[in-house]
This record gives sequence, structure tokens and C-alpha cells, in this order.
Amino acid sequence: MSTLIDSRTLDFLLYDVLGAEALCARPRFADYSREAFDAVLASARGIATDLYAPHQKANDEQEPRVENGNVVLNAGVKPALDATAEAGLLGATQDGELGGMQLPHMISAAAYALLDAANAGTASYPLLTVGAANLIAACGSTEQKATWLPPMFTGRFTGTMALTEPDAGSSLADLRATAAPQPDGTFHLHGSKIWISAGEHEIAENIVHMVLARIEGAPPGTKGISLFIVPKFLLKSDGSLGKRNGVVLGGLIHKMGWRGTTSTLLNFGEQGPCVGYLVGEPHKGLAYMFHMMNEARISVGRTATGMGHAAYHHAVEYARTRRQGRLPNAKDPLSPPVAIIEHADIRRMLLEALANVDGSLALILECARLVDDEATAPTDAERATATQLLEILTPIAKTYPSLGSQVAISNAMQVMGGYGYAREYPVEQLYRDNRLNQIHEGTNGIQSLDLLGRKVMQQKGAAFLALMARIQATVAEAAGSPLATQAEQLGVALGAWAACTRTLGAAMQADPNRALANANVYMDVAGRVVYAWLWLRMGLAAEGRLPTVENGEMRAFYEGKLAAMRYWFAFELPRIAPDLALLNRLDDTTLTADPAWF
Amino acid sequence: MSTLIDSRTLDFLLYDVLGAEALCARPRFADYSREAFDAVLASARGIATDLYAPHQKANDEQEPRVENGNVVLNAGVKPALDATAEAGLLGATQDGELGGMQLPHMISAAAYALLDAANAGTASYPLLTVGAANLIAACGSTEQKATWLPPMFTGRFTGTMALTEPDAGSSLADLRATAAPQPDGTFHLHGSKIWISAGEHEIAENIVHMVLARIEGAPPGTKGISLFIVPKFLLKSDGSLGKRNGVVLGGLIHKMGWRGTTSTLLNFGEQGPCVGYLVGEPHKGLAYMFHMMNEARISVGRTATGMGHAAYHHAVEYARTRRQGRLPNAKDPLSPPVAIIEHADIRRMLLEALANVDGSLALILECARLVDDEATAPTDAERATATQLLEILTPIAKTYPSLGSQVAISNAMQVMGGYGYAREYPVEQLYRDNRLNQIHEGTNGIQSLDLLGRKVMQQKGAAFLALMARIQATVAEAAGSPLATQAEQLGVALGAWAACTRTLGAAMQADPNRALANANVYMDVAGRVVYAWLWLRMGLAAEGRLPTVENGEMRAFYEGKLAAMRYWFAFELPRIAPDLALLNRLDDTTLTADPAWF
Repeated sequence: MSTLIDSRTLDFLLYDVLGAEALCARPRFADYSREAFDAVLASARGIATDLYAPHQKANDEQEPRVENGNVVLNAGVKPALDATAEAGLLGATQDGELGGMQLPHMISAAAYALLDAANAGTASYPLLTVGAANLIAACGSTEQKATWLPPMFTGRFTGTMALTEPDAGSSLADLRATAAPQPDGTFHLHGSKIWISAGEHEIAENIVHMVLARIEGAPPGTKGISLFIVPKFLLKSDGSLGKRNGVVLGGLIHKMGWRGTTSTLLNFGEQGPCVGYLVGEPHKGLAYMFHMMNEARISVGRTATGMGHAAYHHAVEYARTRRQGRLPNAKDPLSPPVAIIEHADIRRMLLEALANVDGSLALILECARLVDDEATAPTDAERATATQLLEILTPIAKTYPSLGSQVAISNAMQVMGGYGYAREYPVEQLYRDNRLNQIHEGTNGIQSLDLLGRKVMQQKGAAFLALMARIQATVAEAAGSPLATQAEQLGVALGAWAACTRTLGAAMQADPNRALANANVYMDVAGRVVYAWLWLRMGLAAEGRLPTVENGEMRAFYEGKLAAMRYWFAFELPRIAPDLALLNRLDDTTLTADPAWF
Repeated sequence: MSTLIDSRTLDFLLYDVLGAEALCARPRFADYSREAFDAVLASARGIATDLYAPHQKANDEQEPRVENGNVVLNAGVKPALDATAEAGLLGATQDGELGGMQLPHMISAAAYALLDAANAGTASYPLLTVGAANLIAACGSTEQKATWLPPMFTGRFTGTMALTEPDAGSSLADLRATAAPQPDGTFHLHGSKIWISAGEHEIAENIVHMVLARIEGAPPGTKGISLFIVPKFLLKSDGSLGKRNGVVLGGLIHKMGWRGTTSTLLNFGEQGPCVGYLVGEPHKGLAYMFHMMNEARISVGRTATGMGHAAYHHAVEYARTRRQGRLPNAKDPLSPPVAIIEHADIRRMLLEALANVDGSLALILECARLVDDEATAPTDAERATATQLLEILTPIAKTYPSLGSQVAISNAMQVMGGYGYAREYPVEQLYRDNRLNQIHEGTNGIQSLDLLGRKVMQQKGAAFLALMARIQATVAEAAGSPLATQAEQLGVALGAWAACTRTLGAAMQADPNRALANANVYMDVAGRVVYAWLWLRMGLAAEGRLPTVENGEMRAFYEGKLAAMRYWFAFELPRIAPDLALLNRLDDTTLTADPAWF
């Protein structure tokens, strides 16, 4: 039994549900085939198993520490990063001419999900490097790309994203870091950034910080923010390392979990000048950074998904082997105890976990597919639709897996009882690690405001309508199938969600504070409906595959997917009803609660 | 701002909602007055603040360890235990003639909740001592009471409950520890017990283990279990410590949280004879132990409640002082950021936390009141009803606060963002600590089976009908009040819950496996309805008090309670509807999921 993500599940989602093979027909991916995709995934699984998983626990127990002014990571991190680079995964989706593998994002996301499942603390280093490299590739000058990307793709340099400041938190409008123009065209940065993951370490020769700051005289708010490349070491003209730049460690933050990824306070320009290179045009930094943030938000969901899958597999293995208790109708105390998976409530917890983690994986891979479609779909219209869908699904893909995996991990712990709570077993670490996913890259509350206040409403609801159309198409497809009942249920839910969205849209004009007051509840409805849509697609695919397989294990596999689908429609989707009623009446209980009352 | 439990909230619940003062009219409590109760609570609050809270974090960071064969606890634990004993709290509710304070359980529970809120890791030592002492007081012989209770009330001896075995887990029917009768009337015990909290340490002279084991030749299953007192040190005839008894530490378990309470594997009779003294009659041990377990289950809920309150107060303080972002209708980026409590979603999280932790505290104090009523209510009928209500509320009081406080603590963490996730702040420890409350003293899954399969159904539903009658009385009382809308909503919910219970009762005859398959969902419905009942009572009390207060802060306090009540009726109670539908249709999704499908 895999303790990462079941390879059958990845195959099922990629090929049976999401049609990954069809991507090979597109010019950008013409060199690929299903076999080539599978080889990449096998390579990632090997690295995850051999180089990530073994120090997952050590990453937690011996967290990064400062020694002689250097941040020392667990010895397992660097070999893992190097292997990831050697496998080409740091430039996985980048153009071949930039040194990338030109792999579809869908396959890359599946590969990274395996690393996440094995050891998220270590996976953050490649993840952030990829994010920073993608940002430079998308927004940097030709020279910047030539300078920074090759060493980032080979893991010689790693990357960070440095947005948050101690006083500003999630409110980027209030960023105060400054950038003073220098005669040579560079800038000198001043300020502090906090919660910077992978902000300081010795596993790479250099660290490339992508930093938001205000050029002196810039307008206030989000319209005056620029993006800079700030390396730990400046480069000589031949590309070799020059002198230390003025970005220095202010301190390490010690977290409840995810300890393998060091979290830092960085000071810029406090001890000597800190040189930064402007990316793109001045004052457009936030728009550029959103490129990385959207990717990072989906990555958060993906990491949560990997953690959830890992916990699910631990719980299933335990539930099959641990024998305890008897069924309600068994009266003989001398009858042997049953494996606890025989208890209905254990299966409820496992089904709830499975329905969440597979739903999350489907959503993450669907989003990755949309990133591919955005750039490579055959027609302009398809590309535009992909962008719209990606816009609206991104906050859901950040939020719902972070919650769903915490449910799955908590259920895994509950299945294992005291053993799940003991540090001798791996589930409690996942419980601590994954909790961060509700917080970082914009809290779930901020994602909910983004979904309802921006993504759903923008362009007269174009993105929302595009998503409706996609879901409706699945409903129509399933209407005549054995899943007609679920199709009808989803159709009704979709209509109710759309009506609620119209009500909130009208309310937004009159009173945005009130219309947005229950954005968190709206997110929950959206997540349940979107997962129902994905489950209906998974159900259809499983129904389609079942008659073709003889193998008992594979039949059980597809039956399991159908059971998880039924679970979602029986237990989870109906829970939108009271929440829609709350949203429709513009409930103002929380809005009108006076701060003095707490 | 208190970071334990707001004293105004304790006053409100004890006196305005639950009528604690009326207890003073009963002969057992005739020496008490409200002032005397308040003095006990003030003493407990002082101990909690001065002796428990200061080493809460150290308890976590420097967990119990073995040194030279001894288990060493944090240096703060023993002074805290001693102060608790000196304040009389170890024998708080016991008869005066046994050396107790003869305090109502309701007041004792409130006092202990303060210790729980301050430092649950340390509070476990007195908690378990009280539990073991209460068990001896209830079931022991006169000689056993005289021997063991005095040193337990003074903290010289502490107690444990030793039920669980490595192979049996929650299934007490499968216990294998044995007890061999000796010519002198004692027994020699053999076997192992695991997860024994406070099972070994040096903070007391002796440890009194309450152990379940089978006398040789006893019937199988739960009907062959006997209860024994097994001290760490045998006593000489004068009561002084004699030789070491054969119960020895097999190892320490390292937990995700609640680390201050050492969790042990104990071996009995492995190295030299282990002497045990039979309590009560042979083979009746489980019935006796349920006395302690029911108390312990409510204590679990109480500890969760204390932790939840502590987290809530941290979050409120942070939300008032942290300034970040602007409201949706604020367009000027130069306007100052607002305190985050101004954001509706922050208030949603705080209201959800408050509604849960106050609902939990009301339930715990209501249960404690029922323990008092069971023994001291004026009429036999009242006492019998109290027993029934206590039976049915106990599994809810164990389960729902454990969940509600995890929501509250998670919300507190979310309100604090990254700071909530950092170990520099106290909330992440509470998040780890409280998670255990869903597991120990019978997992929430077991509580749900107990509620639906046993407590609701027993004696033709007598306990359920008694609870219905209580809730109906509150509905009737509120019908003509400003809370008539909530009263009507609760009345409808109550009717729906009762109808669902009848449906499940009928199904239980036909197929207990199916009727019990969704017991967890039934528990969730029960919790939401019971908290709605408690909130309606709190709402009525707050409505009654509001016109009498001029003070702005106290007005805000009562308005806060009313807002939390409205939150419960607007957000939480309506969520029973889809779950009742699932229960009513005897949904078999989880029951029919084949173990091979996972």
C-alpha cells in the first residue's frame, strides 16, 4: 500500500477523468506521450519515496536552526532538492529553450503532489524556486531570464516570495518597504519582510528573493508597489557569485508544524546596501506577483491534498490490521474481535477522508489543466474560458483542500485513536503541518472575499457563468447514466447556487459590507458544489471503466470511487441548503455584532 | 482581559442561568452561600493564575522524561497540585465526614474549569486523583475509604484509572489482565495497561491505580471484570509507606499535545508480585468503573471547554489590538487600517467560538448540576429524572465540547493568522492539546454509539423523553418573550429530532447495524439541539438582566451573549435539517461500503 498517493488514483484522474493524453496532440507537448508522462511520474515517485519521505519526521523533530550565523537544515533536504533538479522538475513546465522540460502543468502538478505527500517541509524549497522562476520567466527581461533561470532550474539557486511585512500582514496595500533608484539603474531596498519561507539556508549557492517594495514617490496603496529581484549574493559579470547583498536574517519563526521549511524574518538594507533589480515596469509589481500568488495558491491546495492522501493511506492500513470490538449485532463475547474497518463509523471516517482528498486532487489537477489550456488550447475562445475558470477556481482550490485535508487527517487520527495522537506515528505531524494551509498565501477568509467579492462578480459574472456551463455540461452528460439521480441533485444545487449568487450580486451594489459578510459560508457552498461536479465526473469515469475490468482489485478500486461519490452526494452536498438560506436572507448576525460585545 | 474563563460568564451561568444559589437551601449545602461559592471560585482562579498558568508552556516544551528510572515532571506541577489540595479542591464534593468540602458539583466543576483553562497538563493530576477518590468513596469498603481517601484528599497520594490494554483498546470486553486470589484475601495482578495518564511520577508519595482485571475463572466479556486498588507502594499497618508494589513503568508515550500529563505503559506483576485489593464485589468492576468513567467523560468535556475559553480570550485580545486592512466599502488607501475585529469574518469566527465555548460551559455546568440533583434534589422523582438526564447528556457532554472547542481554538488560530500558528503564542498548544479530547475516555464514535444505541433507547426512551420535556419547558417559557422566534425554531427542531429518534428506534429492532451506522450524525444533531436549548436559556437570562444594568460594559456583555445565541440559531441549528433527512432515510452509504474498496 502506497503511503503517498495511490498510483491508480493518479492514473484514473489524469487519464480517465481529465483526459491528459489529449494534451499530447498540442504542438507544445508534441514530444510527449502517456508513457513519457508516466515516466516523469515514476521518477517523481521514486524521488519522493527515496529522498523525501525518509527525513519527513526528522524535518519535524530537528527543525532548522542557526549555527554560527548560518541556517542549518536537516541533511536530507539538499539531496532531495538536487534530485528534484536532476529529474528536471524545477523547470518542468518551462519552455525547452529556457532549459525547461515543457511538461504540461497537469503532469507537473501530479509529480509535485507526490513530493508534497512525502515531505512538504522539504518540498517547499523546490516549490518556491519554481514559483520564483516562473515569475521571472513570465515578467522578467531577457537578460534577467538568462541570468537567473538556468541556476534556478539546476537547483544551484533557490527562490522565495517576499511580500508580507510585520505591520501589514495580508494587507498588501500597506506595504512599507522602499526602493531607492540608483544611478546604475538598480535600486537599494529598505524594510523588513516576515514569514518568508526558505528565506535563509545553506542548501543552495544563492537565494533569489522576489520582493515587493515601493519606489520612492510611488502612489499609496496597491497601485504603488513594484517587484524586485533581490539575490542573497550579487553576481559578477560572468555569473559567478560576488559579494553578499544586504538582505540578512532577522530571526527564525518556530511553527506548530511544517517545521522543515524554515520561516524567516528578513531585513533589507539594514547592514549595508541591499541591491534589487526591478522586474517589468514600476508600480505594476502586485499584478506580476499575482502571477506567482495564483500559482502559489493552487500549490497550497496541492500540498494539502498530498498531505491528506498520505494520512488516508496510513488510516486505511491501520483500519485493516487493527482488530477491536464487535459489530452491534454480535453478542458472543468470545467471538474474535473484527478489524476496525468492519465498523461502519470507521468506514464513514475513511469515506469522508477519501471523498475529500480525491475531490481535492481532482480540483488541483483540473486547475493545472486549465493553466495548460490557458496557454495551449486550440482556440482563443477556449483559452479565454480557461482563464475565466482558473480565476474563479483558484480561491476554491486554495481553500477547500486545506479544509478537506484537515478533515481527512483528523479522521485518520481518529481512526487510529491514541496511536494517531502519538508522535511515534506519522499522522499527528500531518495534522500540525496541514493546518498552515488554511492560513498562508492569503487566509481562507481572504480567499472567500476574493471569490465572492471579486471572482464571481467580475465582468458581469462571466467566470461564474463559464463555470456554470461546465457543470451543466456534466449534469447533462450524466442525465441518462446510472448516475442520473446524482446528476439531478447537482442540477438542483447548481440552480440554487446561481440564484443565491444573483441575490448577492444585487446586494453588493447596495451594501458591499453586508453582501460580503458571509463570504466564508459562500465559499463553503461553492466548495461543496464544485466537489460534487468533480465527483460526478469521477463517478461517470468509474462507471465507464467498471465493465472493462476483470481484476478484482481494480473492480474494488472503481467501486471505492463510486462509494466516495455517493458519500459526497448523500452527506456533503445536501449541507448547502441551510447555508444557502442564510446567504439568501443576507443574514447580518455577524455583521451587526458590535466589537465591544466580545 | 482574563485569559482563563471570564468571571462574568461564570457568574452569569451559575447564578442567572442555572440557579446555583438555590442549592444552598438543600441540607447538604446548608453551610454555603453565594459568597462562599464565590470565595471558592476566587481561590481556584488565584491558583490557576499563579500556579497553573505560569508553567503551561514549559509543560509542553519540557515534557515528562525518565531520569534514573524515575519519571520527572516539570517543577511547576507539584506546587500546583499541593495548592489545589490545600484549597480543599481534591475532596471538594466529598462528604465533610470523609474530609471533603461537601461543595456542590456545579461549583467544583466551575473551579476545575479554571484550572483546565490555565494548564490542562497539570490539571490532570488532581483530576485523576479526584476521580479515583470518588470511585473509592462510592464503591469501596469502610476500611478502604479510611485508608486511601485522606492521603488522596491532601495530595500525598494521587490516582489513576487503568482500563485500557495494548490489544484491547476501547473494547473492555477483551481485557486480559488477570487477578489471582491469595490466601490473605488480596489478589496478585498480571498484565499490561497502556495510555495510563499520570501513571508514574514523583510528585506524590504514592499512586493509587484503579485497575480493571479478571479474577481467574471469571466469565468472558464485560461480565467478568473486577475492580482493584493497586498502589505503587504498599502500606504498612500504620498507614506509612511499605515496600514497592509490582506495578512498574513499561515506557512513556509521547503525544502531539497535552504533554504535561505523562502517558504511560504500566506492567503489573512482571517484576515481583503486584498486590491488588478488590473493590466491591467480584465481576462488577465495569459497573463501578462506569461511575468514574461517566465523571471522567464530563471532565473531558470540561477540559475542552476550559481550553476553548482560553483560546477565545487570546483571539479577542489580538483582534482588538491588531490593525490590518480596510472594510469593503473603504476606498482610500491612506485611511488608517482598522482593528481586525472590525472585519465581519473575524467577528464570525469569534461568534462561532463564543457560541461553542459558552454552550459547552453551560452543558458542563448543567451536567454538574444534575450530579448534585441526583443526590440532593428534594423528591425521589426529581432525583430519578436527574439520573436519566445525566445518562443521556453525558456522551454529548464528552463529545460536543471536544469538537466545539477545536472549532473555537482553530478559529482563534485563524484570527491570529501566522501568529496563531507560531509557537511563540499560546493558541497552537491549545490546538494540539484539545485534539486529544475527541479520542480519550471513549472516542467520539463510541460516545455516539452509546448515545443512540444505549442512552436514547434504554427504558423505552425514558431519558430521551425526560430531556424532551426539559427542552419543551424552555420553549414554552420563551414563547411569549422577545426570543419567541428562536423558541419556535427550537420547538420545530425538537419535534424533528424526536420523530427521527422514533424512526431509528423502530429500525433498531430490525437491523441494529443499519440503525447505528450513522450514530455520529445523530450525535451532531443532538449536540446542535441541546446547545440551542442551552442558548435559549442563556438568551432568556440575558434578556432578563439587560434592563437591570446601566453599566455599559455589562450591557455589552449581555448583548454579546444574545449575539452568540442568535448566531447559534442562525448558523448552527439549521444545519440539522440535511442530517435529519440522512438519518430518516437510514442512509446506508457507509454501512454498505466494502472494506476492500478502500
